[in-house]
Amino acid sequence: MYLEKINAPGDLKKLSVKELEVLCDEIRRYLIDVVSETGGHLASNLGVVELSVALHYVFDEKDKILWDVGHQSYVHKILTGRKDGMKTLRQAGGVSGFTNAKESPADAFTSGHASASLSAALGICKARDIEGLDFNVVSVIGDGALTGGMAYEALNNIDGEEMLVVLNDNDMSISKNVGGVSLTLSRLRLAKGYNNFKYGLTKFFSAIPLIGRFLVKFCRAVKNFFKSLFGGNTFFSNFGVKYIGAVDGNNVKKLVKILGVIKKDLSRPILLHVVTKKGKGYAPAENDPVRYHGVPPKNAVAAKYSFSDALGECLSRAAEKNDKICAVCAAMPDGTGLDAFAARYPERFFDVGIAEEHAVTFAAGLAKSGMKPFVAVYSTFAQRAYDQILHDVCIDGLPVTLCLDRAGLVGMDGATHQGLFDLSYLSSLPNMTVIAPKDVSQMKEALRFAMTFDGPLAIRYPKECHFDEPCGAIEFGKWQYIFGGNKDISVFVSGPNMLAVARDAAERFGVEFNLINTLFIKPCDTDMLAGRLKDRLWVTLEENQKQGGIGETIAAYSAENGGPRVIIMAVEDKFVPHMTIPEQLESCGLTAENLIKNICG
Amino acid sequence: MYLEKINAPGDLKKLSVKELEVLCDEIRRYLIDVVSETGGHLASNLGVVELSVALHYVFDEKDKILWDVGHQSYVHKILTGRKDGMKTLRQAGGVSGFTNAKESPADAFTSGHASASLSAALGICKARDIEGLDFNVVSVIGDGALTGGMAYEALNNIDGEEMLVVLNDNDMSISKNVGGVSLTLSRLRLAKGYNNFKYGLTKFFSAIPLIGRFLVKFCRAVKNFFKSLFGGNTFFSNFGVKYIGAVDGNNVKKLVKILGVIKKDLSRPILLHVVTKKGKGYAPAENDPVRYHGVPPKNAVAAKYSFSDALGECLSRAAEKNDKICAVCAAMPDGTGLDAFAARYPERFFDVGIAEEHAVTFAAGLAKSGMKPFVAVYSTFAQRAYDQILHDVCIDGLPVTLCLDRAGLVGMDGATHQGLFDLSYLSSLPNMTVIAPKDVSQMKEALRFAMTFDGPLAIRYPKECHFDEPCGAIEFGKWQYIFGGNKDISVFVSGPNMLAVARDAAERFGVEFNLINTLFIKPCDTDMLAGRLKDRLWVTLEENQKQGGIGETIAAYSAENGGPRVIIMAVEDKFVPHMTIPEQLESCGLTAENLIKNICG
Repeated sequence: MYLEKINAPGDLKKLSVKELEVLCDEIRRYLIDVVSETGGHLASNLGVVELSVALHYVFDEKDKILWDVGHQSYVHKILTGRKDGMKTLRQAGGVSGFTNAKESPADAFTSGHASASLSAALGICKARDIEGLDFNVVSVIGDGALTGGMAYEALNNIDGEEMLVVLNDNDMSISKNVGGVSLTLSRLRLAKGYNNFKYGLTKFFSAIPLIGRFLVKFCRAVKNFFKSLFGGNTFFSNFGVKYIGAVDGNNVKKLVKILGVIKKDLSRPILLHVVTKKGKGYAPAENDPVRYHGVPPKNAVAAKYSFSDALGECLSRAAEKNDKICAVCAAMPDGTGLDAFAARYPERFFDVGIAEEHAVTFAAGLAKSGMKPFVAVYSTFAQRAYDQILHDVCIDGLPVTLCLDRAGLVGMDGATHQGLFDLSYLSSLPNMTVIAPKDVSQMKEALRFAMTFDGPLAIRYPKECHFDEPCGAIEFGKWQYIFGGNKDISVFVSGPNMLAVARDAAERFGVEFNLINTLFIKPCDTDMLAGRLKDRLWVTLEENQKQGGIGETIAAYSAENGGPRVIIMAVEDKFVPHMTIPEQLESCGLTAENLIKNICG
Repeated sequence: MYLEKINAPGDLKKLSVKELEVLCDEIRRYLIDVVSETGGHLASNLGVVELSVALHYVFDEKDKILWDVGHQSYVHKILTGRKDGMKTLRQAGGVSGFTNAKESPADAFTSGHASASLSAALGICKARDIEGLDFNVVSVIGDGALTGGMAYEALNNIDGEEMLVVLNDNDMSISKNVGGVSLTLSRLRLAKGYNNFKYGLTKFFSAIPLIGRFLVKFCRAVKNFFKSLFGGNTFFSNFGVKYIGAVDGNNVKKLVKILGVIKKDLSRPILLHVVTKKGKGYAPAENDPVRYHGVPPKNAVAAKYSFSDALGECLSRAAEKNDKICAVCAAMPDGTGLDAFAARYPERFFDVGIAEEHAVTFAAGLAKSGMKPFVAVYSTFAQRAYDQILHDVCIDGLPVTLCLDRAGLVGMDGATHQGLFDLSYLSSLPNMTVIAPKDVSQMKEALRFAMTFDGPLAIRYPKECHFDEPCGAIEFGKWQYIFGGNKDISVFVSGPNMLAVARDAAERFGVEFNLINTLFIKPCDTDMLAGRLKDRLWVTLEENQKQGGIGETIAAYSAENGGPRVIIMAVEDKFVPHMTIPEQLESCGLTAENLIKNICG
């Protein structure tokens, strides 16, 4: 076992290139074993085993390797001192599922959201050059992340910096890739032989002294000619980046060779186009990379009710009768539950790639022209489109419905993926309405409400919940009593987890209070609050940052109107790392015990 | 005068092409006259006179023309029934300085922020195609806006839609353009003759029957060869968009001709590259398009103290002694006051183009590598980088300082440019510190504080203020008494305008209260609040949306801790349209009179 000997970054260098091939097999087996147990991103990591090994073999500890998104950094983690740590992957106190600068100095930048690595890498390059330091900067970015506009902003800003961009092209983002650039990459993949041909030709002619120089010049023209025939090579040269590729990214020997050549001459920005196979070496993942993009932990029990499924069902059913209904997603037709809709209504389904900004304004364009668009996106990724929501949707009050999945605490994906900000950033937008349903049935009611609602609307919900109850139609801006109504203590909850906590408190501790579902986060139900000003205490619970959340809104109402004392239970101004959702609730103090303590003072 | 006869979109069509040339001259004179009086965007509108005329001459009322950013839509407004309205440009109740769908059906989409028009246009195209309607969609986007990633996300999503993108290339954003794509466009400009040559050649050979067909095929290879020589034509073809250009955009005759040809055959996405001269026809603006990008109203009196100037001065002075200090801006070295810094420290100054997302993560990369970056950006544009601030700066607590200019009410630019959200979206970010200085001297102190502060920091300030006072060093998280301290009513203000309102109230009405400068919006000075819990009343004033602002934070503190009643004076959940800042303060109820009313009940 070579893997046994790999405990620090330097250990890899002691192996021969031939031994690397064996090591790659061992890593692959180890990955499958570990991730099947812990859960995590499997297919993408299986695809980059050789690339990760080759990068660390060729580059040095002082060099900075940035992994875009970071979910493909498991092999990198194994090679940089976290081999055993991988057994704690995504668990409380364990290794993060993304690169994390606080976890290891080998993680040059903390990642989680796509398309950011080039910008960070460029900043690191500039700092290096200003400070006169000597190290290499390598950014590994997938073809999926290249559909994000931020990556282009960075490409457009590259100005001769000595940096290597490794384009890890598996023709997938999380689902199948989309867009013009994806087609360009396909052409480049097909033109694999091109570079070998070109280099061979130049070398041959250069060997002939005098006439050679002329021929090299001529060859350059020929090269351009071939370039344009192979189509698209000039795409990266538009940004002043030298393109090399495409190279078989699952061939460690070839990778070591070409990376070695590049490293010796990294005097300008170079993009190495590497073609890898997502799920490589594990038949189930190779055959179904979408399903094996992320796998659940071995003993995970899925909750009974899935909000994403409900979204897909509801929108599909509504679309039968209403031909204005469209669905938009950003590279996640599966994760958001829209795959069924996509299959039935392909002409009204739009997967725009990892491009949340575009997704929202595109939907605004649809809405402006009389369509009824639903944008399904994870809460954490909607952050990317904050300005578009504010500017292109809210200012004109366009009827775009945002379906914010994975809102609240998200569990093992951790700090970079928490949906703990949406209530704050959405509530401050004029013309915006925000609904946080308490379970799947109510989420369906919210969607029904959305169908005829003529304005910007966000429905935020977690992945799943453990209970579901039949519920009546919802009314604009109205909250609902879950129980009580005549006690002098009122507890205000939003979403299924907070409802469960409050019910648990009432049942287990027998303390009496009114339980109110703050179904509308915005507008706030001031009628209900006005009727409860004589209460002795209000307690609010939400899965959101305290600042700007519904608790502060309620507390402010109380302070403005002479209401009771308010205790706000929310996430207290911190990022919440990876662990299970129950552990996260506990770590944020969002528990029945704390609620009881707060009530009983 | 032809202009006299232009009162509705159809009137233009009655003129001959020859008459259009005269009309263009008349419009140009009218623009100079009107904008010199009202203030507004001059240079960009002078540049697109012929383009706007030609577009409306060739296209019809049912067609949708989207103006990216929209500040270049004055001529369009003149031609679509708002000629006289232009005299009220940017004034209360008058014509907006940007396209505004509520102002006229001719404004196909409300604009204000760059790079969004392609996404909206694509949505409108899709809706048209689904609904089986028949109209053309034209998006006019500047070369500056092409540096925004969102434009690429849209380009990447174009999939054969029948739409025309007019690339209005004046080689400028607000300041000089930057980046790889800008160079590509330069090459295309130089290759102006290329398309004529190509078409001529194909036509010639096609005339020869049999051998002709072979030659046409050969010509295509030759075309590609020339393409690669001229360099960059393939850039847009990567996105499946047919490129036509470059065309002289100040020649109305040529424009009418080529737009006519395009309109007849708009069966796929076409990009027409039009080269215009910013400031065209007005010597001062042609010679200094940066200065004439936006001109002030004729009778405007600049306030005495400019925050932008102070930023440039302070950073330049600090950079003398500290070689870690860098400055980053997004296409606005002048507007943000960084031009002086840029001239003195070019190697530590980074204008990344209209690319706020990249700007912030790039700065995070700089900070990660030991530099001390200051990102100067208008509050409204920082919205674009919300996710990057949260994710790439705050999660790791990197010492990036955001200098948020034009925060609060901005006056005549109106709804799309208000800085009324930053307190809300920044306060909910863990690890973030937010300072709102009361005047320029205190802003300088805030910058001094920033120099040694090791974490994410935002300093938010308006363009200018009318007073300035010497002030002491600021202390982390500490608020300051402006006066009082032992009254039972406390007024909490942030920023110069709110301070002025409160002082005015005290002076004019003689009402007694403690006046506190909530210098730190985050963290909130809970020590001070704890010491004032026995007060009878707290009133808060801020130039920000009420939701998520400092008022709600203070009110929530009171409700949580049994403090006094709180009255929050802020912008009450609305967008604030264009008018002067005093008028906007009035329209938001942020006045001394209201403060007195609130205090005296």
